[in-house]
Amino acid sequence: MIKVAIVGANGYTGLELMKLLGSHKHTELVHAVSRSNVGVKISNIYPSLSNVYGDKSFCDLNVAALKRDCDVVFTALPHSASAEIGGQLFDAGVKVIDLSADFRYTDIETYENTYKVKHPRSDLNKQAVYGLTEINRDKIKNSCLIGNPGCFTTCSILPLYPLIKENVISPKGIIIDAKSGTSGAGRKSEVDYGFCEVSDNFKAYAVATHRHTSEIEEKLSDKNRKVQLCFTPHLLPVKRGILATIYADCTAASEQVTAAYNKYYAGEKFINFMPNGLMPELKWAVGSNMCYIGFKLDTRLNKIIIVSVIDNLLKGASGQAIQNMNVMFNLNENEGLPTTACYL
Amino acid sequence: MIKVAIVGANGYTGLELMKLLGSHKHTELVHAVSRSNVGVKISNIYPSLSNVYGDKSFCDLNVAALKRDCDVVFTALPHSASAEIGGQLFDAGVKVIDLSADFRYTDIETYENTYKVKHPRSDLNKQAVYGLTEINRDKIKNSCLIGNPGCFTTCSILPLYPLIKENVISPKGIIIDAKSGTSGAGRKSEVDYGFCEVSDNFKAYAVATHRHTSEIEEKLSDKNRKVQLCFTPHLLPVKRGILATIYADCTAASEQVTAAYNKYYAGEKFINFMPNGLMPELKWAVGSNMCYIGFKLDTRLNKIIIVSVIDNLLKGASGQAIQNMNVMFNLNENEGLPTTACYL
Amino acid sequence: MIKVAIVGANGYTGLELMKLLGSHKHTELVHAVSRSNVGVKISNIYPSLSNVYGDKSFCDLNVAALKRDCDVVFTALPHSASAEIGGQLFDAGVKVIDLSADFRYTDIETYENTYKVKHPRSDLNKQAVYGLTEINRDKIKNSCLIGNPGCFTTCSILPLYPLIKENVISPKGIIIDAKSGTSGAGRKSEVDYGFCEVSDNFKAYAVATHRHTSEIEEKLSDKNRKVQLCFTPHLLPVKRGILATIYADCTAASEQVTAAYNKYYAGEKFINFMPNGLMPELKWAVGSNMCYIGFKLDTRLNKIIIVSVIDNLLKGASGQAIQNMNVMFNLNENEGLPTTACYL
Amino acid sequence: MIKVAIVGANGYTGLELMKLLGSHKHTELVHAVSRSNVGVKISNIYPSLSNVYGDKSFCDLNVAALKRDCDVVFTALPHSASAEIGGQLFDAGVKVIDLSADFRYTDIETYENTYKVKHPRSDLNKQAVYGLTEINRDKIKNSCLIGNPGCFTTCSILPLYPLIKENVISPKGIIIDAKSGTSGAGRKSEVDYGFCEVSDNFKAYAVATHRHTSEIEEKLSDKNRKVQLCFTPHLLPVKRGILATIYADCTAASEQVTAAYNKYYAGEKFINFMPNGLMPELKWAVGSNMCYIGFKLDTRLNKIIIVSVIDNLLKGASGQAIQNMNVMFNLNENEGLPTTACYL
Repeated sequence: MIKVAIVGANGYTGLELMKLLGSHKHTELVHAVSRSNVGVKISNIYPSLSNVYGDKSFCDLNVAALKRDCDVVFTALPHSASAEIGGQLFDAGVKVIDLSADFRYTDIETYENTYKVKHPRSDLNKQAVYGLTEINRDKIKNSCLIGNPGCFTTCSILPLYPLIKENVISPKGIIIDAKSGTSGAGRKSEVDYGFCEVSDNFKAYAVATHRHTSEIEEKLSDKNRKVQLCFTPHLLPVKRGILATIYADCTAASEQVTAAYNKYYAGEKFINFMPNGLMPELKWAVGSNMCYIGFKLDTRLNKIIIVSVIDNLLKGASGQAIQNMNVMFNLNENEGLPTTACYL
Repeated sequence: MIKVAIVGANGYTGLELMKLLGSHKHTELVHAVSRSNVGVKISNIYPSLSNVYGDKSFCDLNVAALKRDCDVVFTALPHSASAEIGGQLFDAGVKVIDLSADFRYTDIETYENTYKVKHPRSDLNKQAVYGLTEINRDKIKNSCLIGNPGCFTTCSILPLYPLIKENVISPKGIIIDAKSGTSGAGRKSEVDYGFCEVSDNFKAYAVATHRHTSEIEEKLSDKNRKVQLCFTPHLLPVKRGILATIYADCTAASEQVTAAYNKYYAGEKFINFMPNGLMPELKWAVGSNMCYIGFKLDTRLNKIIIVSVIDNLLKGASGQAIQNMNVMFNLNENEGLPTTACYL
Repeated sequence: MIKVAIVGANGYTGLELMKLLGSHKHTELVHAVSRSNVGVKISNIYPSLSNVYGDKSFCDLNVAALKRDCDVVFTALPHSASAEIGGQLFDAGVKVIDLSADFRYTDIETYENTYKVKHPRSDLNKQAVYGLTEINRDKIKNSCLIGNPGCFTTCSILPLYPLIKENVISPKGIIIDAKSGTSGAGRKSEVDYGFCEVSDNFKAYAVATHRHTSEIEEKLSDKNRKVQLCFTPHLLPVKRGILATIYADCTAASEQVTAAYNKYYAGEKFINFMPNGLMPELKWAVGSNMCYIGFKLDTRLNKIIIVSVIDNLLKGASGQAIQNMNVMFNLNENEGLPTTACYL
Repeated sequence: MIKVAIVGANGYTGLELMKLLGSHKHTELVHAVSRSNVGVKISNIYPSLSNVYGDKSFCDLNVAALKRDCDVVFTALPHSASAEIGGQLFDAGVKVIDLSADFRYTDIETYENTYKVKHPRSDLNKQAVYGLTEINRDKIKNSCLIGNPGCFTTCSILPLYPLIKENVISPKGIIIDAKSGTSGAGRKSEVDYGFCEVSDNFKAYAVATHRHTSEIEEKLSDKNRKVQLCFTPHLLPVKRGILATIYADCTAASEQVTAAYNKYYAGEKFINFMPNGLMPELKWAVGSNMCYIGFKLDTRLNKIIIVSVIDNLLKGASGQAIQNMNVMFNLNENEGLPTTACYL
């Protein structure tokens, strides 16, 4: 059995990791670290986990114990804090899958400009692999340090990557209008995320300034093309799921679009590409680790409109983290990962 | 124009008072007191009030200014604090409508047992009038100190009062199973009232211990009969509204039930009694100051099942407070008060 | 008193018209026509209207009676049917405010291509005035036939009109990503609009083919510029409200944008333009006849991102229809129209 | 592999059966019968099942094929129709698990009075076993015809059965105030279950007349005691889950209540009894096959208040049906059944 710990276990990504690990055949959750809930039973906060974890409690952060007991640690702390703890574990030879932004960027300057902090372990970013499994599977296999992608990022890069690389769309003028469920904001005690504020409401936020913009641009750009795009997130009155509506300049035919997707994603278990103009709905993905992608050409305007959906806590966070772990440990890649949505 | 102030203006009851006063013909909002938002524009927190209050800001608590400038003050502070401020204003001859529990109880001991505090102005409770308008209209007319009823209380007393007084139901064994929208918890920054926690969920709380139990019992009891009842509140995943399902032992015929309601409520503008077995739905009342009441007899079991609905922030709080103000100032009782629900 | 009828009164736009007329000082609802509910009491379907309409029932369509009894008729029927009835009433000298698409288009061919029907009264479209009040107020004043705008259309044209006319943005390449509450689909008995299907879900629909595209393009184009744009509607799991996120190419400075809005909308009671980068939220408008507009410049990309919100049933349908009626009858333009949102 | 068919596969219980069977190790779905969707791909209606069922389509009802190909058939048709088809299959030696009310009642007269139809196969009800697994496990093991319990019924009987049998509560005067998610009404195209009607609303229905009353009473009664109770269902604005708040006369101590539950349910995998006064919330069960039970004594009133929760589509329908199948085929009882809720 693979010995696993979660650092930052009481948040929503931590909850999802605990749920997924609970039905994973080859792992054992050794430590669930939550500094604000030391000694509190997991099932006191999440009663529905009582069948899986019984009387197990959250424990304090003890790096020595993590080094001693774990094969892999999921770090889900605020940025900068995550790199410090994750860095120490990596130095000690523990595999690390970090869910913060700290190990996502290749370019440290972009990270520091985006997050307005000095990176505490900038020495490690060259060794870290960006954990978008379908794109970087081979590198992930041999890596010991994963920067797990952001939720908006996953939902944006997966549909755009093949079209950019195959020159099906223009790298300039892309617009990503993304809508996320409220769990994306985390398990927060803020009036703004209260039921009475979010229910029956909808809003854009961080317009023209959201941090995921630079992450998407870095991952889609290469030496041949520099991608700059306009990204606008919105807050949906639902708990889970992201739907991105993406607009790009495109003069290609429908067959070329389909060919590009098939080239990159044929055989992928967690990507469901729909070639026939059908546009996916949020609930097709929520509860699963799937990414659905659909598109439509507007030949009148030479535009392509793409719709992609994921569950922000699964393919957008904890599900992809488990997928990366499966790859790193040579397990069946979809072990422990749901492919069917709740739907209802 | 009647000069009005609100103390505790930034909460949801304060917001509703500001909305209602904004369309009231005979009042002017002189001070909107919020100690946590001194100097902040009202429209910064509630942008939809910008058309009514323009650049007006919340101000600090200044009892002298309130005494000097106001004909009536709505106090909406935590219990105990409300009685202190309200008491000072009352002493100075300002009319006070208090939305806390402080002036609701005739029996100070019951209050102190229920709220686990020493009442700071127990001298005033004999002069205070319980502001359930339909029951105490004549006393309210001549009063300068109103203890405005609780939301669950209003929704429970209005349907039970005529049946108890006319001996249509037994005063023993009554069960009130009440369901409230989340705004009843106030404008709080607690994880428990976060969107992700409340949405798609439903729960009972404070079972067998909720404070409104003693308020309902005191108001339904008299020297001839002591009412003891079982009250269970639940949290609904909606913003507004209370629906109470009430069970009582009853051997009366349908006509007697109808006669009791007609005796007390015929001609009441804010009570809509339905004699024909139709049960009201939450949305029939939400957005209005109405209370809807329906009932059904289960002759097999000698039970009556009553359903009553109100908007917890209107008839259950701010609407009834305005209704009481209208009575106290000899205005048209429904001035400024909506009688039609949002419905959709 | 102005004698009013509604044809198609039992749908959601009919409900909103009945609610608004119920608090309007200068109108009387003479006939509420609903062919599928002849003889049914209005309050049987909408119990919360019982305080306004008492025992009044829906009646059958009787054009002669409408001609005889009414000063103005709101026609809210499916397209083509609406033009036939509305045309007959107009011919008889009754003022008509039509809420279907039939009298919105100047160009009959565009209408017929868009709606795939032959226009039954194409003779009237030259006399009909497009009822976007803030743009066409003077023409509306003297008109007897109004084509009331669509909901997405209102929410799109109001924020774009000043910027197009003042050449602040390019007329090419505009993208409108719009999100609407479910009441926009009407009061339908279809599985697709069932609670279990819409709740916790979100989706795009009619991508690249929605009918409102041609309406928006016609109204924004003139002989100097032909506007072509990409319009994508989405279905939000809320009952009411539309939020449009609009992207356009723009090299102007913030001051020029503000100047354009001020030129067209300064003094408008139902338009709330926010010059300071604040983006409006859905709930700021829901329950009111307001349109809120905010914007942000992305100077890195030479884009402007505009967010506009309205209540689809008020400013997007019934509210604007009443606003047009007020203009046509020389009443106070905001008589009977709420300017403050429900918010909560 | 056990060969399985579902008759009535396109409804919500059918959907859940298909989801559960999709991850069940020992079954194969041979026929998914839906007379209204013959030839339609399952994934056209439920796209998220495409990963499980690929291109498989719904088929027409063909009793001969079902007899020939199946070991067990789940019949989920309207009452009376279900008994006819189920009866034919049973006659031919196929195991039948019927999700309608047809085979739930021992007393045919009660069934016929409740459902107002003549039972088409009243000869079979003596052989049918009521499929409340925890109560009737031994009989289910050897049965070939199961009447799978109703959703409200399961949520009511499980918490009451031990207390009635052990004389901990009085069999008279029990009140069940139950609240159900909207999926309980099925996949219907009715305005009443539309998003705009259900969202932000809450209502009681079928007060004093709901059909599940007689089912609960029959199953709790025996020759020593006749249970008569008051049952009131309500419609919650959530998709899934039932929470029942149950009131009964009780003079027992907390230890006696706990002892009764332990006697009947200790070791049960799908019942989570909480002895410490903690009351379960809806979301603790939704997404799992669990039933949570909590209670509180109100010694002032000699009442016990019990709260029980289940997922209406799992433990209240399809989950329990699979649980019964597992018992009938001597499989691990929790094979294919989730014990952990979605929670978020």
